[in-house]
Amino acid sequence: MLQRIGAVGGIAAAAGAMQSMGWFGVANARPLPDMPADLGRGHTVVVLGAGFAGLVAAYELEQRGFSVTVLEARNRVGGKAWTVRDGDTVEMVGEQPQTARFSEGLYFNAGPARLPSFHQGVLGYAKRFGVPLEVEVNSSRSAYLVARNGSRLRMRTAVNDMRGHVAELLAKAVNQGALDQALSLDEKAKLLPFLKAYGDLEDGYAFKGTTRSGFKTGPGAGISSFETPSEPVPLADLLANEQLAMMGFDDNLYMQATMFQPVGGMDQIPLGIERNLKRRVVLDAEVRQIRQSPTGVDTAYIDTRSGSAQTISADYCVCTIPFPVLAKIDANFSRPVAEAIAGVVYDDSNKIAFDAPRFWEQDQIYGGLTFVGGETSLIWYPSWGMHSERGMIVGCYSSGEPGRAFARRPIAEQIAMARAAIERVHPGHGADCSAPLAVNWKKVPHSLGPWPNWTPDRRPREHAATDTPAYRLLCQPEGRILFASAALSQTPGWQEGALQSAHAGVAALVQQMADRNVTERRRAMV
Amino acid sequence: MLQRIGAVGGIAAAAGAMQSMGWFGVANARPLPDMPADLGRGHTVVVLGAGFAGLVAAYELEQRGFSVTVLEARNRVGGKAWTVRDGDTVEMVGEQPQTARFSEGLYFNAGPARLPSFHQGVLGYAKRFGVPLEVEVNSSRSAYLVARNGSRLRMRTAVNDMRGHVAELLAKAVNQGALDQALSLDEKAKLLPFLKAYGDLEDGYAFKGTTRSGFKTGPGAGISSFETPSEPVPLADLLANEQLAMMGFDDNLYMQATMFQPVGGMDQIPLGIERNLKRRVVLDAEVRQIRQSPTGVDTAYIDTRSGSAQTISADYCVCTIPFPVLAKIDANFSRPVAEAIAGVVYDDSNKIAFDAPRFWEQDQIYGGLTFVGGETSLIWYPSWGMHSERGMIVGCYSSGEPGRAFARRPIAEQIAMARAAIERVHPGHGADCSAPLAVNWKKVPHSLGPWPNWTPDRRPREHAATDTPAYRLLCQPEGRILFASAALSQTPGWQEGALQSAHAGVAALVQQMADRNVTERRRAMV
Repeated sequence: MLQRIGAVGGIAAAAGAMQSMGWFGVANARPLPDMPADLGRGHTVVVLGAGFAGLVAAYELEQRGFSVTVLEARNRVGGKAWTVRDGDTVEMVGEQPQTARFSEGLYFNAGPARLPSFHQGVLGYAKRFGVPLEVEVNSSRSAYLVARNGSRLRMRTAVNDMRGHVAELLAKAVNQGALDQALSLDEKAKLLPFLKAYGDLEDGYAFKGTTRSGFKTGPGAGISSFETPSEPVPLADLLANEQLAMMGFDDNLYMQATMFQPVGGMDQIPLGIERNLKRRVVLDAEVRQIRQSPTGVDTAYIDTRSGSAQTISADYCVCTIPFPVLAKIDANFSRPVAEAIAGVVYDDSNKIAFDAPRFWEQDQIYGGLTFVGGETSLIWYPSWGMHSERGMIVGCYSSGEPGRAFARRPIAEQIAMARAAIERVHPGHGADCSAPLAVNWKKVPHSLGPWPNWTPDRRPREHAATDTPAYRLLCQPEGRILFASAALSQTPGWQEGALQSAHAGVAALVQQMADRNVTERRRAMV
Repeated sequence: MLQRIGAVGGIAAAAGAMQSMGWFGVANARPLPDMPADLGRGHTVVVLGAGFAGLVAAYELEQRGFSVTVLEARNRVGGKAWTVRDGDTVEMVGEQPQTARFSEGLYFNAGPARLPSFHQGVLGYAKRFGVPLEVEVNSSRSAYLVARNGSRLRMRTAVNDMRGHVAELLAKAVNQGALDQALSLDEKAKLLPFLKAYGDLEDGYAFKGTTRSGFKTGPGAGISSFETPSEPVPLADLLANEQLAMMGFDDNLYMQATMFQPVGGMDQIPLGIERNLKRRVVLDAEVRQIRQSPTGVDTAYIDTRSGSAQTISADYCVCTIPFPVLAKIDANFSRPVAEAIAGVVYDDSNKIAFDAPRFWEQDQIYGGLTFVGGETSLIWYPSWGMHSERGMIVGCYSSGEPGRAFARRPIAEQIAMARAAIERVHPGHGADCSAPLAVNWKKVPHSLGPWPNWTPDRRPREHAATDTPAYRLLCQPEGRILFASAALSQTPGWQEGALQSAHAGVAALVQQMADRNVTERRRAMV
C-alpha cells in the first residue's frame, strides 16, 4: 500500500511538467505517466458527460483500476464531436427541429472537423483504438479570398503575387542601400538571390508575374502552347481585398494545409474510446442535482426515456458538463465556485451545411476554405469522396461577434445567407445546394455554446487568453469534484484541450487520493 | 460520308487551340472535341506502347470507331506508371535483378507518384474509369531542409522565420521612407499592417519569433503552460542553409501541398483505361521492325514468351516508344526523322525505396518531402496508411546531373547512400529501413530514361524548354506514323503531357485521314 502511494506522489506535478514540454519546436501531449493498474481499486468515480473529456477521463481511470460510471444527457457519446447523418434530428432551443436529409453516405461534422498533426494526444487515441484517419485538406490554393465588393482573388494569386511584390520592394530597398545598417555584407549578398527565388523575380529584381499564381497559357503538347505566367495583380488591388491577411491562415499551426479527419466522421474517435470502456456509458441521463459531502459525491439524474429518477454515489466526480449547463443544475458548490461557473461567457459558433453536386471540383477546388468575411465568414469544401456525385459543403462557419449576430437571425434567413455566399463565389450554384442544416451551438441543448470566451472584454482571438481568476479557480479541485473540459485548457476550441484537461483531472484525482491516504495513514499512526 | 469528313475538318487546329486556353488562371486540358463514333470505321491503327500515351490514344481511337491493336513489350501496361509490389522483379541493364520483398499491402510507385489538381486530363480519366483517388501530401511543414553541414531546419521554421525577417526588413525600409518613390500613400498605409500580419511582427514591426514556427512551450490544460513561440532563427543562419530556397517548392503549381494519388498505386489509372479498351493489349510484344508504305504501316514484333515472330499491318501507327528505344529499332523513317530520334538525350532519374516502421510519424511527419541536396536530393514520406505499422519511404529521388552521377554508382552503394541520408535526418533509423529497391530509369529496359532533356546544353530546369528543331520535327506526322508521348509535350516528366500528346496524335491522325479522303474524293471526281 505504501508503495502504491509512493508511486502516485507528485503525479499532478509531473502531468503539468509534461504538458509544458516543447518537442522539436512543436508541442507534444504525451500520455499520462505509468501508474499501477490497481491504483484505484475499491474507489468509485462518476464522470458527468461523455464528450471527449469525459470519455478520456473514464478510460484512463478505468485503466488504473477505478470503478467508473459515465452519465450522459444525450442519447449518444461524443458531445460536440457530433457527426450528423441522414435521418438525424437537430434540436435547438427556441427553434423547430431540423431533420437531416442527406444523400447516401454523406455526413456533416457539426462540431470539430479537423485534427492538426501536433495534437498528438487525440491522434494517439485514434491510433490506439484503431480509428482510421484520412487527410483533411484544410487549404486549397484554388479557393478564394472574396472582397466586400464581390471581387474574388484566388488564394494562390494572393499568396504568390503578394510575395512577388514584397520581394521586389525589399530587393529595391536593399539595392538602394536603405538597409545597410540592418544587414551585414554577407547577409545582403545572400538575401538578394534568395529574394529572386522567393518572389520569382526577373533579372533586375522586377516582379512581372509568376506561374505559381497560375498560367496565362498552360503547357500543352507539341508546339501548340507554352507555359506563360498569368498577369500579376497590382499591389494596390491585392491590398484592397479585406480578406488578404487570410491568405496566410494555413501557417497557423492549428490550420495547416493538411490535417486529419477520422474516416466516416469525427464521432469515430469518441466511439472508439467508448468501445474500450469496461462499463458502458449511461445515456439519456440528465443530471439534476450534485451533492458533495466529506466522504463522497451523490449525483441525482433523470432517465429521460423512462422518466425515472436515479441517484449514484461515488468517491469522486469528474464533471465535464459545460458551464452554462452546469450553472442551471442544483449543486452545493462553494459560493466562489458557483459564481465563477455562473459567470463564464460562452462564444457563438454556427455552421450551415448543404448536400450538393460537387460543382467546386469544376473549379479545381478539392477541399480547403474560401474566405468571404461577414456573418457567414467562410465556405468549407469537403476533403473526401473526390469525384463522386455529391458532397457536403459548409456555407457558413462563423463565431465571435459576427457569429453572434448571425445566430440571432431566423434559421431560414441563416440558410439563405449561406446559400447566397456560395452563389457569390460559385455563380449559378447556390440553387444546387440542397438539404440545408443549420447548427447554432449557443442553442444546442447540453452544450449551450461551443467554447467559453474567458476574456470577452478583449478583442476575440482564435486562442483566447484563458488566464482569468475564474479560470484559475475552476482548474482547482472543488473538494472531490474535478472539473475537466476543453474550457479549462489553453485551447478551449479543440479536442486536444479537452484531452489535456481530462489528463490533468485524472492526475489531480489520483494526487488527491494519495494525499488523503497519507493523511489517513498519519492519523492511524498517531 | 461527306458529312463525316466535314465533321472532322479542323480538328487538329481545334485541339491545338484547346490546349492553349487558360482557365481561371490555371491550365485546363479538356477532352477531345466530339467526333462521330463511327468516324474511324474500316480503318486500322497499331499503337506501339501501352504506357499512358498509348493507352489514351488507343482508347480515344476506339471510341471513334477505329480498329486498334496495342503492342506492348513489357508484360504489363502503364509504362513508367509502374507500381512495384511484393514479389515483383526489377530488371535493369547491366545490373542484377532485384526482387521486391515488401510487407503486406505495401507498394512503391517507381515512376510518377503524384497528380496536381490542374492536371484535369489525367484526373478526368481517373474519374471516368472510376479509379479512386486519395490525397497525396506533397508538403509537410514538419519535414526538413538539411544543410551540407548536417544542420536541419524544420520547413515551418524556414518558411515562417524567413517571412518574419523579410516583413521586418521591408517594414523598416518603408518606415524610413526608402520606398516612397515606389509606393503611393495609400499602398504604404495598407502595406504596413499587412506586413505586421504577414510576418507576425510585434508592435514596432520587430520580428521576435512566431508560434507559426512552433512552440517553445505548447498550450496545455489548466495553468500548467501557455503557448509561447519558439526562438526565431537568425537571418544569417537561415540564409546559410543551402536548401533554403526549397522551402517554397510547394508554391510551384506542379508541387502543391496537396496533390492526388490513385488508391493502391499509380498503375491503377492505366489499368482503368486498359479495362475499357475493346481489344486487349498484346503484351510481351517486342517491336523489331517498322515499315511504312504509301498505303499503311507494317510492324514486325517478337512474342518474347513464345519467341514467335508476328507482323501486323495497319492504316496508321501511333508510336509512343521512347526515343532511345526507338533509335535501336529497324525502321524506314526519313533521314531527318531518324537523325532527330537518334539525337534525343534522355535525363536520369533514380528512386531508392525502403520498407520501414513509420519512425517519421514520431517526428509528426505524415507525408511530404525533406530536402537533403546532393546525389540523393530528397526523402519522400508516404501519404497513406497513417498510424499503421510500416510504410514505404523513398530515400533518394534525384535527376539531372546529381542523378547521373548517382546512377553510375553500384546499386549497393546507391542504397547505402540513401540509407545514410535517412540516418542523417532521422538519427538511429537508417538501420530500420529494410527491403531496399533501387530504380535507375536510365537502365530500365523499354524506357532507357524517365524523360528527354531537349536542351541538355542549358541549365537543367524542372520543366525544360522543349522547343528545339528536333522536337518540332518529331511533333509532325511522319507519313502515317504519329509520334506521341510526354516527350513531345511541354511537360515531358508528367502523365498529363503524355495525355496531351496522345490527344494531339489522335487529332492529327483524324485530320490526316480527312485530308486523304478529300484528296481521294477530288481524284475520283476528276
